[in-house]
Amino acid sequence: MNKIIECVPNFSEGKDANKIAELVSEVVSVKGVKLLDYSMDSDHNRSVITFCGDVEGIKEAAFNIARKASEIIDMRYHKGQHPRIGALDVMPFVPVKNATMEECIEIAREVGKRIGDELNIPVYLYEEAQPNPKRKNLEDIRRGEYEHFFEKIKMPEWVPDFGPHEMNEKSGVTVIGARHYLIAYNVNLGTNNIDIANKIAKAVRFSSGGFRYLKAMGVDLKQRNIVQVSMNFTNYEKTPVFRVFEVIKREAARYGVNVVGSELIGLIPAKALYDTAEYYLMMENFSYDKVIEYRLYE
Amino acid sequence: MNKIIECVPNFSEGKDANKIAELVSEVVSVKGVKLLDYSMDSDHNRSVITFCGDVEGIKEAAFNIARKASEIIDMRYHKGQHPRIGALDVMPFVPVKNATMEECIEIAREVGKRIGDELNIPVYLYEEAQPNPKRKNLEDIRRGEYEHFFEKIKMPEWVPDFGPHEMNEKSGVTVIGARHYLIAYNVNLGTNNIDIANKIAKAVRFSSGGFRYLKAMGVDLKQRNIVQVSMNFTNYEKTPVFRVFEVIKREAARYGVNVVGSELIGLIPAKALYDTAEYYLMMENFSYDKVIEYRLYE
Repeated sequence: MNKIIECVPNFSEGKDANKIAELVSEVVSVKGVKLLDYSMDSDHNRSVITFCGDVEGIKEAAFNIARKASEIIDMRYHKGQHPRIGALDVMPFVPVKNATMEECIEIAREVGKRIGDELNIPVYLYEEAQPNPKRKNLEDIRRGEYEHFFEKIKMPEWVPDFGPHEMNEKSGVTVIGARHYLIAYNVNLGTNNIDIANKIAKAVRFSSGGFRYLKAMGVDLKQRNIVQVSMNFTNYEKTPVFRVFEVIKREAARYGVNVVGSELIGLIPAKALYDTAEYYLMMENFSYDKVIEYRLYE
Repeated sequence: MNKIIECVPNFSEGKDANKIAELVSEVVSVKGVKLLDYSMDSDHNRSVITFCGDVEGIKEAAFNIARKASEIIDMRYHKGQHPRIGALDVMPFVPVKNATMEECIEIAREVGKRIGDELNIPVYLYEEAQPNPKRKNLEDIRRGEYEHFFEKIKMPEWVPDFGPHEMNEKSGVTVIGARHYLIAYNVNLGTNNIDIANKIAKAVRFSSGGFRYLKAMGVDLKQRNIVQVSMNFTNYEKTPVFRVFEVIKREAARYGVNVVGSELIGLIPAKALYDTAEYYLMMENFSYDKVIEYRLYE
């Protein structure tokens, strides 16, 4: 697998394990595609499947799983806490290795068009795949949810990008796009004072003046009697993990608090770790092709 | 390539590029094997070829390249500054990923036996592949060089491990073994005082009381007007790069000197960089299978 593209579809089904298994089997049967993870949440009545593949494999698996969802999930009977508008609710494509954002946008458009044309489901493009700034944000598209989309879809500013211009009652609508890899990473502080975690989160996150590609909030880890700065890195190449980590250490020191550890939620691309090692070891001549594995699998 | 084993044969030929090309072609033609690097040195009249492969591929490529060397290199006419005893002088097998030292020892014994039996070349095992402590060290085996080996090979303590018990005039003898991955990594200091580099090298290296799997010496980088601690890590899992780097920073500070950078010579296994990132980011729950690429290529 020279090029690695990740696909992370979210489905409006989180109670019936048999249905999740049917969806997963659409992925594992495609050559050039590998399942990385899947999880179901019965409160949200929602599941997330993560898989990787090359260009051709990822397109085939993505379409097949979309078709399967349209067959086995019926939105007319769906209830759950999480906002949702479709059986296959949202499906981003993510460049991981040797693939560009442009390729992921192209894949999103191609798969989106097939879902629209062949499955008769209205499709909206989002994030990097959506040129219209008013339609880039997933929450803006999803606002009103399935129940109100029968009206929303008729509004001129919400004409779908692909597929029919009217609601698919059974499947709802689907949002497809391309985005950067998201790293979920949390830093633990040696205090139980949530105010300090909140202040540090505020200092580093984009929304309050911090790093452009960072979301952050304070979280109370009651069982361990400590607090945490919980973060999402939405573009780790431009807002790298090591830099934010160092700023958090500095901010914590200002309150006389130490960083006591950190944790990774989910997976991380090798490059984010290579970049971290290069930074701390102050390397002058580093490049990815100095890594044996990088060279071998390139 | 699930398992990655590295093979780094050294040949007593560093002047004739055509012969090096013939040796290299033995590697690239084997399925499951990938050439990583090769270099020739005409002063030493010696060349080094680095390739990786799975168990079957590496065995085949290693034997084929040994046979080719026995055909095209003639030790009776070899002159060069570097100590040497054979056309294929030394050939270590190195576990890089998903392979154990035991597997590399087994490969070394198997390939060594074939070279002895089929090419009629005396073979000595060294390092991890050699159970006899008096014959583990390459320099001990090679002492006397090709010219004196006609006598040395007759001594009871130097009976070869495989192959004939007398010298092969054309090919000499060959040393084959298994060792840990060697990382060559240098740390640059913000001073031109070589004494400081030497003192720090002495503080960190095994031979004078430092880290067990570390060789180090001070080097003058005259062109840049700085000095360097030049190092070989002979087992980076037990003597890790990040720990030595931090000790060097501390030792340099004791002389009022900063570390100004570092450089990697050759290649590094991904794990050495993952370990570095895990250390500096103080991760609590890290494991290699949190790395996407590690999961995909496992």
